[in-house]
Amino acid sequence: MEWDLVVHGGPVITADALETVLPAGMVCVRNGRIASVAALPPKGPPPARDTLDAQGAPILPGLVNTHTHAPMSLFRGLADDLPLMEWLNGHIFPAEARFINPETVFAGALLSCAEMLLSGTTAFVDGYFLEEHVARAVEVSGMRAVLGHGVIDFPAPGVPDPGRNVEAAMAFVERRLGRHSRITPSVFCHAPYTCSEHTLKKAKARAREAGVLFQIHTAETLGEREQCVAERGLSPVRYLESLGVLDDKTLAVHCVATDPEDIRALLRNGAAVAACAGSNMKLASGVAPVTEMLARGVRLGLGTDSPASNNNLDMFREMDLAARLQKTATGKPSACPARDVFLAATRRGAEAAGLGAVCGSIEPGKRADLAVMDAASPRLAPCFSPVSALVYAANGGDARHVVVDGRVLVRDRQITAFSVRDAMEEVRRFAWQIRAANGQGGKA
Amino acid sequence: MEWDLVVHGGPVITADALETVLPAGMVCVRNGRIASVAALPPKGPPPARDTLDAQGAPILPGLVNTHTHAPMSLFRGLADDLPLMEWLNGHIFPAEARFINPETVFAGALLSCAEMLLSGTTAFVDGYFLEEHVARAVEVSGMRAVLGHGVIDFPAPGVPDPGRNVEAAMAFVERRLGRHSRITPSVFCHAPYTCSEHTLKKAKARAREAGVLFQIHTAETLGEREQCVAERGLSPVRYLESLGVLDDKTLAVHCVATDPEDIRALLRNGAAVAACAGSNMKLASGVAPVTEMLARGVRLGLGTDSPASNNNLDMFREMDLAARLQKTATGKPSACPARDVFLAATRRGAEAAGLGAVCGSIEPGKRADLAVMDAASPRLAPCFSPVSALVYAANGGDARHVVVDGRVLVRDRQITAFSVRDAMEEVRRFAWQIRAANGQGGKA
Repeated sequence: MEWDLVVHGGPVITADALETVLPAGMVCVRNGRIASVAALPPKGPPPARDTLDAQGAPILPGLVNTHTHAPMSLFRGLADDLPLMEWLNGHIFPAEARFINPETVFAGALLSCAEMLLSGTTAFVDGYFLEEHVARAVEVSGMRAVLGHGVIDFPAPGVPDPGRNVEAAMAFVERRLGRHSRITPSVFCHAPYTCSEHTLKKAKARAREAGVLFQIHTAETLGEREQCVAERGLSPVRYLESLGVLDDKTLAVHCVATDPEDIRALLRNGAAVAACAGSNMKLASGVAPVTEMLARGVRLGLGTDSPASNNNLDMFREMDLAARLQKTATGKPSACPARDVFLAATRRGAEAAGLGAVCGSIEPGKRADLAVMDAASPRLAPCFSPVSALVYAANGGDARHVVVDGRVLVRDRQITAFSVRDAMEEVRRFAWQIRAANGQGGKA
Repeated sequence: MEWDLVVHGGPVITADALETVLPAGMVCVRNGRIASVAALPPKGPPPARDTLDAQGAPILPGLVNTHTHAPMSLFRGLADDLPLMEWLNGHIFPAEARFINPETVFAGALLSCAEMLLSGTTAFVDGYFLEEHVARAVEVSGMRAVLGHGVIDFPAPGVPDPGRNVEAAMAFVERRLGRHSRITPSVFCHAPYTCSEHTLKKAKARAREAGVLFQIHTAETLGEREQCVAERGLSPVRYLESLGVLDDKTLAVHCVATDPEDIRALLRNGAAVAACAGSNMKLASGVAPVTEMLARGVRLGLGTDSPASNNNLDMFREMDLAARLQKTATGKPSACPARDVFLAATRRGAEAAGLGAVCGSIEPGKRADLAVMDAASPRLAPCFSPVSALVYAANGGDARHVVVDGRVLVRDRQITAFSVRDAMEEVRRFAWQIRAANGQGGKA
């Protein structure tokens, strides 16, 4: 019987529990699912309707970006090298107030999907407003995503009355729950310092009822921690624990300003962490204790954060940054080895996102979300260790084919389902409006 | 009169003294030299034998990598995530002793040239042994390079008698001096702790006589600094100063473990620094005080270091890492802004390498060393600031065309002068030998 798709001809880095690497393997796909992972037979790959030949390059699970705000590609590079509050209050929040609408959210999110797909990322966890229009972009792109509608105690795009913020988020969850196999709805509470105790408890209770992931920015900076300790008498992590908000369906994002007691709190509640080294470095927010979290067994994925703070969505770069930053911060070149960040960007990231049964590793039964690297990239030779090559040598531009749910979404570095040029043009059109408005100074 | 080459159709980021950016510019080239930099006329580009249309993407000076050991792509990924001394003594030095010969040096260097060219780097500063064979690879590649033959007080590849080390380095200088417009010979003393006082003085004296650049690893780690202070009573930088080795033709590489007095010593002697954030991070060597050096006016370029310690030669990633690391180390998101690292990777890097009159900026009279980014890369939209986009969003894979000395060496992401696949195959062939030898354990 013919397979739908066979991917073969390179080392298959499965990221399974044994971290199996098949030196010359093949992955057979039927009905969007991985049906078989095996050594390539000497007579070549079995019959299939479609075939991808890796030509010796690594075949890996599609990468999982556990934290972003996809529409914010609209603001990429709008204002860099600025202190966080000046960046947020002087540039990002005003631009959001003026330019965020269904059309711009869709355009920004689609461009981000293009960037993620072309750099080997097949699934992402997102939090923003007007999230329904992020979902539309995900549908067009063919990607997999966990999408959280934002909850914040201020007027926000699409939610003029903050008193209705949890309801707005839950309306998105109810609309999307179980409707689409690749889109999983979620609730995204912005942060402990922008949501009241009441909002946090209510949003988590509703998320728990619905059985969906609860995302929340937590302890991004030392300043946030100090404020929380001053106002609540507890660190952000332990404050969330005290509210009953931490559990195995909570994804705590950043966790930079955390101490050993916070790590124990994350562990005893089974909460997951999305570590965002690139964004934390660019905003000078500090260094999350990722090495210690991993050593103690915290469930941990990697995230790029938004294209406005990063300013890219390249998970290969994020793996590399995470590893290098931990080595620098601990003073140990053996800290955070390549395999740790690779697992965080694949299987463990999928688990942190609540997608552990669905994707993140190349194993029979999981959905077929894969990336194949470009055998022509000089960075990938030699290849004493495929995982090391992926983390320290490769970049997102070295991905050649990308498969989601068994569909080849990127073939020979080209997106097949939609026009990247059009997506770029659309975002540029809005960027001109933002630029023009900024040129008007106070009138913007 | 017809131009040899016109590059047009995007913002021209000149990196000249005024940091001029022409929003829609063109660069006209004749006899390998930039003859004119101007706004694109409304009627389109003037007649030329060859034309590169940027299609809206940035046109920038080719990047200058001020520190690498190009042949070491042979050992890329051989042994990562290890403490420095275990990595060097247990893996790199034994592999070098066994596998470094003219053939492998040429193969490794050619693969590195391919990687650098394809990621927008047009010139590099190299230090290794059997450097004549690096020079052969540079000739084949069409790149520009400053090549230093290694001096170390141990037996080394091609220099079995360390008593003849300076002579061997100078033989290379004499053979290459003035012979080839793109290759500038240099002297590369390995480090203050591997070369005696006598060797350092003699090598610098000979380099000075010949008028060539003197490269030396300096203060790479705190351990090196402490050893130098214990043995010489001076920090590495001030020890070199005391020997008369620091001057405006000295390139001090790394300068991680340096203090304000060291920075003053670099300044008063006009010495240049090659900062290598990526390698320093991966080896957990510490953080060079780049922000302070730049604030005080130290001449500073960026380097990738070798593909065995980095493990890539992507100067876009290096710009990004340098900026992010300084923000993290200083706690200031405004530290080391995009323009600082961009200038360090272009004009100031060229100046540090002694190529300030030749390349590093897009100005009439300089050689035509340019890169054109790929307008199809989603990371480059929107583009509120081209320099920010290049530093924080782009990666090396986003370079589309690369020109050195007026010759188009990369066209549409393809190297025209030699086969990258063959260069990769050749290095893989040696890698198999290294792998086999390692598999034999003690017998290797």
